[in-house]
Amino acid sequence: MRARNLAVVLDAIHRTGPHTRAALAERTGLTKTTVSSLVADLLEAGVVTESGAVRGGERGRPGVAVSLSGHRVATLGLEINIDYLAACVVDLTRTVRLRRTRPADNRSSNPAEILERLRDLAKETTAEAESAGLRVIGAALAVPGTVEGGVLRSAPHLGWRDVRVEDVIDLPLAIDNEANLAALGELWFGSRDTDFLYVSGEIGIGAGLVVGGTVFRGTFGLAGELGHVVVVPDGPACRCGGRGCLEVYAGQDALLGPLDSVAALVARLESGDPRALEACERAGHALGVALTSAVHLVDPGRIVLGGIFARLFPWLEGPVADGLGARLGQMRGTPPALVVSGIGADAAVLGAAGLVIQRILADPAEVLGL
Amino acid sequence: MRARNLAVVLDAIHRTGPHTRAALAERTGLTKTTVSSLVADLLEAGVVTESGAVRGGERGRPGVAVSLSGHRVATLGLEINIDYLAACVVDLTRTVRLRRTRPADNRSSNPAEILERLRDLAKETTAEAESAGLRVIGAALAVPGTVEGGVLRSAPHLGWRDVRVEDVIDLPLAIDNEANLAALGELWFGSRDTDFLYVSGEIGIGAGLVVGGTVFRGTFGLAGELGHVVVVPDGPACRCGGRGCLEVYAGQDALLGPLDSVAALVARLESGDPRALEACERAGHALGVALTSAVHLVDPGRIVLGGIFARLFPWLEGPVADGLGARLGQMRGTPPALVVSGIGADAAVLGAAGLVIQRILADPAEVLGL
Repeated sequence: MRARNLAVVLDAIHRTGPHTRAALAERTGLTKTTVSSLVADLLEAGVVTESGAVRGGERGRPGVAVSLSGHRVATLGLEINIDYLAACVVDLTRTVRLRRTRPADNRSSNPAEILERLRDLAKETTAEAESAGLRVIGAALAVPGTVEGGVLRSAPHLGWRDVRVEDVIDLPLAIDNEANLAALGELWFGSRDTDFLYVSGEIGIGAGLVVGGTVFRGTFGLAGELGHVVVVPDGPACRCGGRGCLEVYAGQDALLGPLDSVAALVARLESGDPRALEACERAGHALGVALTSAVHLVDPGRIVLGGIFARLFPWLEGPVADGLGARLGQMRGTPPALVVSGIGADAAVLGAAGLVIQRILADPAEVLGL
Repeated sequence: MRARNLAVVLDAIHRTGPHTRAALAERTGLTKTTVSSLVADLLEAGVVTESGAVRGGERGRPGVAVSLSGHRVATLGLEINIDYLAACVVDLTRTVRLRRTRPADNRSSNPAEILERLRDLAKETTAEAESAGLRVIGAALAVPGTVEGGVLRSAPHLGWRDVRVEDVIDLPLAIDNEANLAALGELWFGSRDTDFLYVSGEIGIGAGLVVGGTVFRGTFGLAGELGHVVVVPDGPACRCGGRGCLEVYAGQDALLGPLDSVAALVARLESGDPRALEACERAGHALGVALTSAVHLVDPGRIVLGGIFARLFPWLEGPVADGLGARLGQMRGTPPALVVSGIGADAAVLGAAGLVIQRILADPAEVLGL
């Protein structure tokens, strides 16, 4: 009961901003004595802080306001991507305090070796946060693959199967698919819209569907594999065993062709290189087909292009929007808006840190041991 | 508070079977006096009934058991399909009491005319139920189209747009897409599995995704338009404005060709007619492609083929399962099981009646005016 009340009080502070204890009592229906005792615990744990006087409650007597504290409790976001490792630290107010990225080549790699490097990065980042007075109390890891029951089941581009990661750091560690976490990153650190399909363009292509502020995960947590939606049933073989999947036409390898980086592709596009433009046109056309199927099946509020698709948005927007308009227009009037993610490559690692923040806010007693 | 407690007590009776008042008090944490008073109201409203003595509570003293009553409160399910109107009456125990189907040709029809016929069917069915001692207290209508905010937005095969239906009967009337309601029919009256994608094969093709016993509806309630998932991007034009949609290959018109009924098609298939077999093969292949995309996007527990696909299951199962296996096997190990719906053409109308039952059980005070 006390755990539940702590969550109720913290939720009120989090959602509707600084409140006096009296205002919190009014909002939550708890007695002022109970609220004062709960707030004392939250203050002690560094979850909330007291700030300047505000008008509190109906009588309007000024009081000391209690608000979320960004000064003590923080969480660690981690990411293993195909060509980099990343870490970030986010405080309870969802302010990003640190970001660290290390280029890497993780294709067909040895899990133990990469996890060792991730451990180093996590340790350094945590130490740096702690030297700034933050207490990092939990972490989450974004991976480019499917996750079931806390285990990385399959990350084909890494060449990993059935890898356990919980020992990477000496903190409680959650693990989730990078597209799901990038979608949550977009929700908490990007547009803050609550209904959208986030499309994560990387070497693989994933999607995270957010409906009413919650990620839809499907029955086994495997939803959102947009990269393997069929675009051409008898198209080229895909590494998944299927044929003509979206990834074959719009994954990073298809877009880059012989080029070695997205920056090189963007430079070619800016100079009007016909082969580069054609690759984007083809990818955009395939994305339009796959997203048409996705809109019919999951009915997203809008479509947010992220990852490398965000950098290529000027060249992808036209063909994708044309495809959606031509195929969806008659049934839906206007198709869902197509927009670009504003948070770029950091989406997944920020979403990972945000996931742990969400857990603290939902159940501070459990997560913080109050 | 009383409304909430009525729902809590009714939920306990519904989920875990007949209970004495003492056992209900134990389960719900309410006092025996409160439970007795709530049960008195439920008895009075005909929602529950008293039955033989059972052992009640921890002491094991036998008492009178209270269970859901199938004798008084009932709901009406209605359906407008392309080639029939249907109605059914279901009692609170989800026993089907009446079913009525009227063949019709509703293609490109006048809404007012069809709604008038539906009104007659509803009146007759309700009167028959009432003569059997049932009190029909609410209804829901399944339509072959998209529904937003209680309005039938678009039913292309009927040729209807923006039709309001609430005046059809003198009862509270909900309206929903037939595939969503058929999925709920499968949940409550069919397999009772709680995680599946129900595929409704009719003149159009829809799907209802059930996850954890709840239909996933998307952001605007338009999810599940499986019939317009793209199978071949530059395939034949579909009436939706797109090209190469599943419906073009596997909708009833594509399957029947020159034949005039599903029964005629089944007869041809049974006699080994090559053109009929080829139509099923082609439809099954297209279904395999579209369902591959659907599995990647929404991750269903299993796939249930319903409507005319249920009758054609012996001929569709092979090509669909082969397609899913070839395309999904490597990423998922085994693809979701492919099964046939056992409740046939009644799924949507039963789901409609069941939807109202669900609302009564969730909030008896509100729905019954207690």
